[in-house]
Amino acid sequence: MYETIKADLKDGILTLTLNRPEQMNAYTDKMNEELLHFYKEANRNDEVRVIVVTGSGRAFCAGMDLSDGGATFSSEQSAEEYRDLGGQVSLQVYEVNKPIIAAINGAAVGIGLTMTLPMDIRIVKKDAKIGFVFGRRGIGPEASSGWFLPRLVGIGKALEWTLTGRYIPTSEAVRTGLVQYESEDPLAKAYDIAKDIVENTAATSNSFTRQLLWKMLGQEHPHASHVIESRFLHWAGQNADAEEGIQAFVEKRPAKFPMKASELPNFFKATKE
Amino acid sequence: MYETIKADLKDGILTLTLNRPEQMNAYTDKMNEELLHFYKEANRNDEVRVIVVTGSGRAFCAGMDLSDGGATFSSEQSAEEYRDLGGQVSLQVYEVNKPIIAAINGAAVGIGLTMTLPMDIRIVKKDAKIGFVFGRRGIGPEASSGWFLPRLVGIGKALEWTLTGRYIPTSEAVRTGLVQYESEDPLAKAYDIAKDIVENTAATSNSFTRQLLWKMLGQEHPHASHVIESRFLHWAGQNADAEEGIQAFVEKRPAKFPMKASELPNFFKATKE
Amino acid sequence: MYETIKADLKDGILTLTLNRPEQMNAYTDKMNEELLHFYKEANRNDEVRVIVVTGSGRAFCAGMDLSDGGATFSSEQSAEEYRDLGGQVSLQVYEVNKPIIAAINGAAVGIGLTMTLPMDIRIVKKDAKIGFVFGRRGIGPEASSGWFLPRLVGIGKALEWTLTGRYIPTSEAVRTGLVQYESEDPLAKAYDIAKDIVENTAATSNSFTRQLLWKMLGQEHPHASHVIESRFLHWAGQNADAEEGIQAFVEKRPAKFPMKASELPNFFKATKE
Repeated sequence: MYETIKADLKDGILTLTLNRPEQMNAYTDKMNEELLHFYKEANRNDEVRVIVVTGSGRAFCAGMDLSDGGATFSSEQSAEEYRDLGGQVSLQVYEVNKPIIAAINGAAVGIGLTMTLPMDIRIVKKDAKIGFVFGRRGIGPEASSGWFLPRLVGIGKALEWTLTGRYIPTSEAVRTGLVQYESEDPLAKAYDIAKDIVENTAATSNSFTRQLLWKMLGQEHPHASHVIESRFLHWAGQNADAEEGIQAFVEKRPAKFPMKASELPNFFKATKE
Repeated sequence: MYETIKADLKDGILTLTLNRPEQMNAYTDKMNEELLHFYKEANRNDEVRVIVVTGSGRAFCAGMDLSDGGATFSSEQSAEEYRDLGGQVSLQVYEVNKPIIAAINGAAVGIGLTMTLPMDIRIVKKDAKIGFVFGRRGIGPEASSGWFLPRLVGIGKALEWTLTGRYIPTSEAVRTGLVQYESEDPLAKAYDIAKDIVENTAATSNSFTRQLLWKMLGQEHPHASHVIESRFLHWAGQNADAEEGIQAFVEKRPAKFPMKASELPNFFKATKE
Repeated sequence: MYETIKADLKDGILTLTLNRPEQMNAYTDKMNEELLHFYKEANRNDEVRVIVVTGSGRAFCAGMDLSDGGATFSSEQSAEEYRDLGGQVSLQVYEVNKPIIAAINGAAVGIGLTMTLPMDIRIVKKDAKIGFVFGRRGIGPEASSGWFLPRLVGIGKALEWTLTGRYIPTSEAVRTGLVQYESEDPLAKAYDIAKDIVENTAATSNSFTRQLLWKMLGQEHPHASHVIESRFLHWAGQNADAEEGIQAFVEKRPAKFPMKASELPNFFKATKE
């Protein structure tokens, strides 16, 4: 069904594989289209509890496909119409209502790295080549990374990396919070975390939590969070997941949460895409 | 006077002890009421220079009291009226005009941990059990933690911890900035810091600084901070604390600051509770 | 031309030296005036690719010049007119369109440290005396540090340092992200990074990137970044820097970027000073 990506669902875990291994999974217009479609479907499907994103072959994603050379970023659209490809996907990932884990299995450069910033957990292959190299190509940060990156690592490291365009040792990526883990086998580590989430947490909880944390980043006052959390708790207090979760805890047995993500009301105003 | 907490004032340090040791200081409606009262009083009292918060017995706070089982979060209030207990206290802690140090002397789970996020300095007992376990109980982040947590540790760790609900090793809590220190004796460490503040800093300075940093977190532009800082410096430049502080520094002697926190004008607009 | 600072331009690197070595480069009204002038000129001059800021002699900047003693912060201006000196400079640094590297060659206390927060990369002399000592002088954070500091290191460390006023070991400054590096020779390290930027990145890219990251810090939604990044990429896709950058990459040769920072359109609304 897809040309440039693969989607495999098993035991609640939907694996997205960037799938142009001969081109180091370089990013194209077609891949962009397919990613937009993929995330929309994943959002709707209650069978999907966690999304794991990885690359086929040695690389995760070597950045934009530059086979058009200097014309890569030239566009026939007007300045008003033109919309950065990566940013379209990032804004959609921002709206996803399931946890997303990036298993960065190899080189992740330019959009190959910025596309992972709106995901929730990043695991990088030890010593993989990663960097925000835009300044060395005469371009600039994209995929809304101007907004996402400083919120992950603080404004200091964000500026240093983007202004120098240098590669980032994976040990530095862990220390600074750019990724949560480095690993010899990022995909195995990603599946460990994904399974833990599927088996031990409620879909309604995760769907709410992911949206809450991302969206409260932009709020001026903690009161905004208080209002939404209150609405959610009031709702949860009348529903089966909270009842089961607390009952199971009291009885010291594993919980079996009965509800689906789609049963969660939309506590968040629709935001821009 | 209080049933579920204790308040002891000595040498400018007000110690708040969560005091239901048989129940691991689990959080109740009554405790919520008493905390709201406690912080209001602490704010008004110029004898209070620093607040230290700790737990009685082995635990700091094991979370909500779940003796009502699955009905814990069910409410007779409407969705519009219902307000999360922890959030009410967090919003009040956010308004406090004195430094607050959490001495997390043992297990701190759920609200036991989120209640410390709006405090200023957190010290955790080495190897204490701490975590944002909401997803494993079918509920979600509360106490305005959706707003506070990412501002402490970055959005990456905040998402990982809340989506997995796993326990957090205290060494990881230090490394990521969730707490500033781990210690075999958190209360002793808290008192060391509190004494240093009481003896060496001005009450007017601390009262201003605490409010400034928390409130500027929500501002779009550094100009907002410039305006308030200018007002404060203009005021300070005509008052006795700054005169004494600078004079003492020039004369290389310890400063004896004469002013009280209540003498500080309100440079901040009233915010929501 | 300047009395309290020096400006030297060489190979695209403009070095600003705070130059009152007998007074440990203590900050005065005159220095403030000259810094405002310096940054305005640096912004306009296309010969300037990177700015390096350091101090003359042993110190970087020992804070406000306190030779007026307790009257240092008293002002004849009204509360409405008065504007903190350091904040005036910080707001201008925030608008600079070139990367700025602070080579903190020695003691940096009070405004000596807060003045570096709106810069992009900070390198501190190993074991130099640094701290936000305001509370110990009866004053408070200035230079818009109430806004800048938590965005660099998280709200936790920001509160601890400003509420205690204690000195910060340089190893802690690195670990927490207050500075990116400690070094026995901060100026040499700064020049290494500056040269790498001058030789390998495009002036238009850096000018855009610096403004983007700082300004997106204040935006509520990643969509704001998407809009500006799209405008920039559309523009870049029709210009010589991106063409050269990508062509050089494809041909595996060093890029020679032809454009000047002043050729970059202003993608950002004018902000307050």
